[in-house]
Amino acid sequence: MDHVARVRRLQGALSETNLDFLLVTHLPNVRYLTGFTGSAAALLVGTHGDGEDATLFTDGRYITQVKEEVANARIVIGIKSPTVTAVESLAARRKRSGSERLSLGIEPESLSAGARDRLASALRGKARVHSAPPLVERARMVKDADEIRLIRKAVALGASLFRVACAKIRPGVREVEVAAAIEYEARSKGAEGMSFSTILAAGARSAVVHGRASAARIPRRGFVVCDFGVILAGYCSDRTRTVHVGRPSQEACTFYAAVLEAQRAAIAAVRPGVTAADVDEAARRVLRKAKLARYFTHSTGHGLGLEIHEAPRLAAGQVQKLEPGMVVTIEPGAYVPGKWGVRIEDVVVVTASGSEVLTPADKDLVVMDAV
Amino acid sequence: MDHVARVRRLQGALSETNLDFLLVTHLPNVRYLTGFTGSAAALLVGTHGDGEDATLFTDGRYITQVKEEVANARIVIGIKSPTVTAVESLAARRKRSGSERLSLGIEPESLSAGARDRLASALRGKARVHSAPPLVERARMVKDADEIRLIRKAVALGASLFRVACAKIRPGVREVEVAAAIEYEARSKGAEGMSFSTILAAGARSAVVHGRASAARIPRRGFVVCDFGVILAGYCSDRTRTVHVGRPSQEACTFYAAVLEAQRAAIAAVRPGVTAADVDEAARRVLRKAKLARYFTHSTGHGLGLEIHEAPRLAAGQVQKLEPGMVVTIEPGAYVPGKWGVRIEDVVVVTASGSEVLTPADKDLVVMDAV
Repeated sequence: MDHVARVRRLQGALSETNLDFLLVTHLPNVRYLTGFTGSAAALLVGTHGDGEDATLFTDGRYITQVKEEVANARIVIGIKSPTVTAVESLAARRKRSGSERLSLGIEPESLSAGARDRLASALRGKARVHSAPPLVERARMVKDADEIRLIRKAVALGASLFRVACAKIRPGVREVEVAAAIEYEARSKGAEGMSFSTILAAGARSAVVHGRASAARIPRRGFVVCDFGVILAGYCSDRTRTVHVGRPSQEACTFYAAVLEAQRAAIAAVRPGVTAADVDEAARRVLRKAKLARYFTHSTGHGLGLEIHEAPRLAAGQVQKLEPGMVVTIEPGAYVPGKWGVRIEDVVVVTASGSEVLTPADKDLVVMDAV
Repeated sequence: MDHVARVRRLQGALSETNLDFLLVTHLPNVRYLTGFTGSAAALLVGTHGDGEDATLFTDGRYITQVKEEVANARIVIGIKSPTVTAVESLAARRKRSGSERLSLGIEPESLSAGARDRLASALRGKARVHSAPPLVERARMVKDADEIRLIRKAVALGASLFRVACAKIRPGVREVEVAAAIEYEARSKGAEGMSFSTILAAGARSAVVHGRASAARIPRRGFVVCDFGVILAGYCSDRTRTVHVGRPSQEACTFYAAVLEAQRAAIAAVRPGVTAADVDEAARRVLRKAKLARYFTHSTGHGLGLEIHEAPRLAAGQVQKLEPGMVVTIEPGAYVPGKWGVRIEDVVVVTASGSEVLTPADKDLVVMDAV
């Protein structure tokens, strides 16, 4: 990971604002910029642009780990919380330089209102505190080669677990037992954890968009939505397949085929220069023709990387243009309340000429024996 | 769960502040007050005190669930985020009443700085926005009988998994494999998930306080710290046991015995009226005598309930007095960097006359065969 280049790019973006410093408190942003994986950290980045004006604050628990992980920032181990230590250091720095009042940018979505109050109060008369634009999130939208390599590995591990799900799914088994088997295999294969609560929704529950695995038993016949992902070396995977237990009706086959066609249409729409809304519309158009549009109640996809949900969001009204290196999920679905639901999801990377699907391509309806 | 009484108590506390409304955005607080378990919610509570001035805002994904779960609040399903919907509703309400400017309290530790900015801007000229004191957290410190019953169940499930850990721990097995087995059993037995990342730290890694299960293999000889908990029906468990693989040295036995004595001393100190700091000091005093105080680098314990870390914190300087119904962990430890570490932890409820340990009491050093 070229953390030096990442911090330098951030300093470039920062110098185009009216901020002297950015206090990075969103932990995935700290990890992106320095490689630090601890749970307590704040990174203070200045605009000098020489790649050295970056200081990482953490606490005594991480004294060994931070030295192993971080090579591109000065390290300060504090006794108080990293944010407080960072602010005290900034206040002292300003005093030394004797310059006029500094301008400090904070990340307003990751800092609590209470923390900002304490910070502003500690810096009163020394620095002005402003909400910074999402500079690091913008950079993180476009993945570099190292990141794509890691996402590819996470997606491969996540996809391999579908086999475990298929082996376990049968009538009478509880949804949560299937989830437990998937999660056990994930951990055994080295995943740090799941990237979100495993969704396993069978029969009529398949119509519940966020149907976390419950104690409900898989019925003798019906769809089972399996949506799960792993975290491997910090990067997330996300994949959905919907299988059918027992012989599917003609109507079920047609329903599944419509969602699959919508998913393929959205993938085909992915290429540099199109907007996030264009991709969403490609999926929605297919479901509209099939008279299923009103059952497609969520957006078509989202970016993923160090976090399971990142920019861009593939939804109506989103004007963000796709660029090579962006990694997004493509996951249309249709849900008829009380009856059934289907969702199909792959992870796709935007390439110079179009896209590459990272998820293995088996998407025909899998029918499980009801016995 | 007597949600009606909880909201009424909150309204009583609120009426002693200068706030007209409290916007509850911390999800465990929303759950505590209404029973709602969805991931998008804001609860607006007024001071009328008739138990009816409470409105729960959520979105369309939860239309069925919220009606099933919530009986003591008016329900509003919005299209925007629950916080925005709540604020728009409040702005409209003020207009109707034509009264003077309202005073709205927010929960400053759970609302982001960005969200408060948007909220204050939407209410400009209509309501003043203030940081509220932690009213709900204060109430949640003292558990009612329903909560203690659920914590008891979670603790029993969590404790039963130690058997799985013992069956799996042996030299050469990876820490993460032990964690996977524990987590599989937890899920199979109905846990919604683990209450924190499973800590499994073997050999020299036992000295790492937050030693999440890693790919490292268990050595032929040494301590293994096992610290994990489950979430069952919303409530958390937390328990640590340290076992020894292979025959322990006399020094190891003495070290373990000192930590165990400190843990027992802290439990004996728990009763109504003592401060959180007193309990911490009781553990620290024993380790000081054993000349191990400098290796005890964290606090003695913390409250637990709907969250794994709640008030009170059992640490030096904490003046909070213990009251019947508080539920805390007692978990002193000692860690010699690069060599070994031991931690022993139980969950304890403060009773009218002293305390009751909820965790099964087997705390003698378990020695696993090295074969």
